[in-house]
Amino acid sequence: MTIEDETELDKNRTPSHPARPNARATLGRHPERGSYDAETIRTILDEGLVCHVGFEIAGQPYVMPTTYGRIGDHLYIHGSPVARWLHTIAEAIPICITVTLLDGLVLARSAFRHSMNYRSVVILGRARIVEQNDEKLEALRAIVEHMVDGQWCSGIRHPSDSELRATLVLRMSLSEASAKVREGAPRDLDDDLNRPVWAGELPLKLRPSAPIADSHGIELPAHVTRWCR
Amino acid sequence: MTIEDETELDKNRTPSHPARPNARATLGRHPERGSYDAETIRTILDEGLVCHVGFEIAGQPYVMPTTYGRIGDHLYIHGSPVARWLHTIAEAIPICITVTLLDGLVLARSAFRHSMNYRSVVILGRARIVEQNDEKLEALRAIVEHMVDGQWCSGIRHPSDSELRATLVLRMSLSEASAKVREGAPRDLDDDLNRPVWAGELPLKLRPSAPIADSHGIELPAHVTRWCR
Repeated sequence: MTIEDETELDKNRTPSHPARPNARATLGRHPERGSYDAETIRTILDEGLVCHVGFEIAGQPYVMPTTYGRIGDHLYIHGSPVARWLHTIAEAIPICITVTLLDGLVLARSAFRHSMNYRSVVILGRARIVEQNDEKLEALRAIVEHMVDGQWCSGIRHPSDSELRATLVLRMSLSEASAKVREGAPRDLDDDLNRPVWAGELPLKLRPSAPIADSHGIELPAHVTRWCR
Repeated sequence: MTIEDETELDKNRTPSHPARPNARATLGRHPERGSYDAETIRTILDEGLVCHVGFEIAGQPYVMPTTYGRIGDHLYIHGSPVARWLHTIAEAIPICITVTLLDGLVLARSAFRHSMNYRSVVILGRARIVEQNDEKLEALRAIVEHMVDGQWCSGIRHPSDSELRATLVLRMSLSEASAKVREGAPRDLDDDLNRPVWAGELPLKLRPSAPIADSHGIELPAHVTRWCR
């Protein structure tokens, strides 16, 4: 993900290095950065807000950003039943869902060793339609709560039957998921270490600004003011 | 991208709505959020730091995060020539590159109308290998400068011939790019407007924390301290 070893994510999880959990979800270059640890994967997914869904239609790949929620070992995404892309992936075609957290910029003493600190999860598999209203409602609750913890029970109106019907919810198993993490300082060549240039990390974090109220006379609730990732 | 109109990005840019610049790169649902304006597209690309590259290998889509740079109407990505995924897309297969900026959370009075404010660009096309060393160097400069403005001429060592040979640089035209933007307040149903619940936006922004030096006795340069997006 970079100039340093631009290939940190290269081949990553492509079919070239058969290993667990299966041949497709495994790590290529920089295997030391890889992980199949369920806790690592869940932590990254729970911190992210947007996932990128990859699929193909008529020979053309597409990558769509969307929000998501997690319940146990499943990721849930949702949309309108008449939306073509969601409708297409609802047919259980192979897809890939990637979540990436950018943790910082890595400034090295040579251009080639510049990098980024990041945590990412790549999930391969097929999405399944959630048919039961109970699970659908739980998934929508997970998606709202994933955005803002405490929001579901803050007094908002929960989905009506017609809203539930107007929502297509898809479930994706995490069984073929892998994580990759790059952290820490730049890794310069020994020959470059005495170069008189600042080197180090610039940590980055998604932070909230002051909330902008659309309502009048209603106090900003604590679960919004304390929002953080 | 949401509960509100979960389908903001639905069908988006899939082949269902023939229009300019061509049938595949056009907008589906929420066309009012779409744009083919070159300036909008460039602004989004210049603010983003990570792109997600979608491609297919043996019937399985993959979505890989990577860094990038822009020169004029081309996006540049790079990696190792032995990296399988980059090697694969270097063969000019159809790919999709998506850049998403998350600008905020939209908290509505009903779960269904929750949303996110975002700006995204989707680029369809085929990547071409940059063969000439001059363009390759310019691309690497663009990638480093895209990360941190002012970094290329900060005293870092520029790529050697062997480093250039060890880097595969790909160029992607922006000719099939489209942007989509959602901004502003929640759009609640009239019936929900009197509900006693806080509604509004929680703006989000990627912000730097204090830089962590890896070098000693070298002053933190101004172009790093003033970094912002």
